[in-house]
Amino acid sequence: MNTSPLEQLISLFAKLPGLGPRSARRLVLHLIRHKEKLLTPLVATLTQTGADIRTCSVCGNLDTSDPCPICSDERRDPSQLCVVEEIADLWAIERSRTFRGRYHVLGGTLSALDGRGPDQLNIDALITRARAPEVREVIMATNATVEGQTTAHYISDRLAGSDVHISRLAHGIPMGGELDYLDDGTLGAALKARLPVG
Amino acid sequence: MNTSPLEQLISLFAKLPGLGPRSARRLVLHLIRHKEKLLTPLVATLTQTGADIRTCSVCGNLDTSDPCPICSDERRDPSQLCVVEEIADLWAIERSRTFRGRYHVLGGTLSALDGRGPDQLNIDALITRARAPEVREVIMATNATVEGQTTAHYISDRLAGSDVHISRLAHGIPMGGELDYLDDGTLGAALKARLPVG
Repeated sequence: MNTSPLEQLISLFAKLPGLGPRSARRLVLHLIRHKEKLLTPLVATLTQTGADIRTCSVCGNLDTSDPCPICSDERRDPSQLCVVEEIADLWAIERSRTFRGRYHVLGGTLSALDGRGPDQLNIDALITRARAPEVREVIMATNATVEGQTTAHYISDRLAGSDVHISRLAHGIPMGGELDYLDDGTLGAALKARLPVG
Repeated sequence: MNTSPLEQLISLFAKLPGLGPRSARRLVLHLIRHKEKLLTPLVATLTQTGADIRTCSVCGNLDTSDPCPICSDERRDPSQLCVVEEIADLWAIERSRTFRGRYHVLGGTLSALDGRGPDQLNIDALITRARAPEVREVIMATNATVEGQTTAHYISDRLAGSDVHISRLAHGIPMGGELDYLDDGTLGAALKARLPVG
């Protein structure tokens, strides 16, 4: 059965993140057993998305329009610019429903190891955007990793001297987190940043 | 973002077995970021499969041809008929590369609880197939569950009186299994069915 269309389909699915050969097989079997209800709409939506997907020329987000719905939404605050590494991070912040400003997607982090310098990232465009008169705050929402923080520092340095206010995400205990299972760094940061009660 | 094509795509993927909203999101993001290498071939193969998929009128397998490649393969032994509940079971046995006969897919098990009687399963066709002069053995490869075994018994009863030999899969310790973690039933069955060494 190695060269059949079904096997091809399974091996395509098996390449996707979070899927292996076994789960891809289950998935394909489920799809072909529910052709009308699942396979047909999936093909239609995939085709549509594949044809329509655009990289937003303003922020670097992927969506079916350029500028993306966030950049073209007049109700969103243009004075706040939230800098994220990847589109997945943008989506994650959107899901939190706590940010009503605009985004800027870097497309990764600086990395000496992987040979990624500022030119490989969407940084120059960010500096230009941050200089616009309406922008008052740049929120560095890169990951709390060494590379994420290095990238945030580099961008802060580039923005130094401009009027824009630069902030970063707070460190602390995750909601529902238990102290006993928390790493020392986070616990220390949460203690240092303690807030008055009530 | 709730009605965007991307969200639609994510919610379609999230319905598939083994995927939830989070993994569907990761998967869709991965697909749209690798449009040429992944999304386009996936759409093509899905479209092709959706158009070509057929239920084999002989055994009940799903494939792009009817009869399926197994039923039409002249090198496979027509004297052995392996009865499975689902297509997934057929695929699993194929992967073991130990069976060179033909299959018969029941499409489930008898179940008083779910109101599935013999008429809802592909049983009559099996009885007819098993009566063909070339068939000498029917291997009951239903699951080792109460319903799987009930179904196997029912079919054995229906086949009683014919010349065909009826067998079932062996019970025993799974390869790599540890006795300490094995259930009593399996361990008892393995002990009872012990074999001489060497």
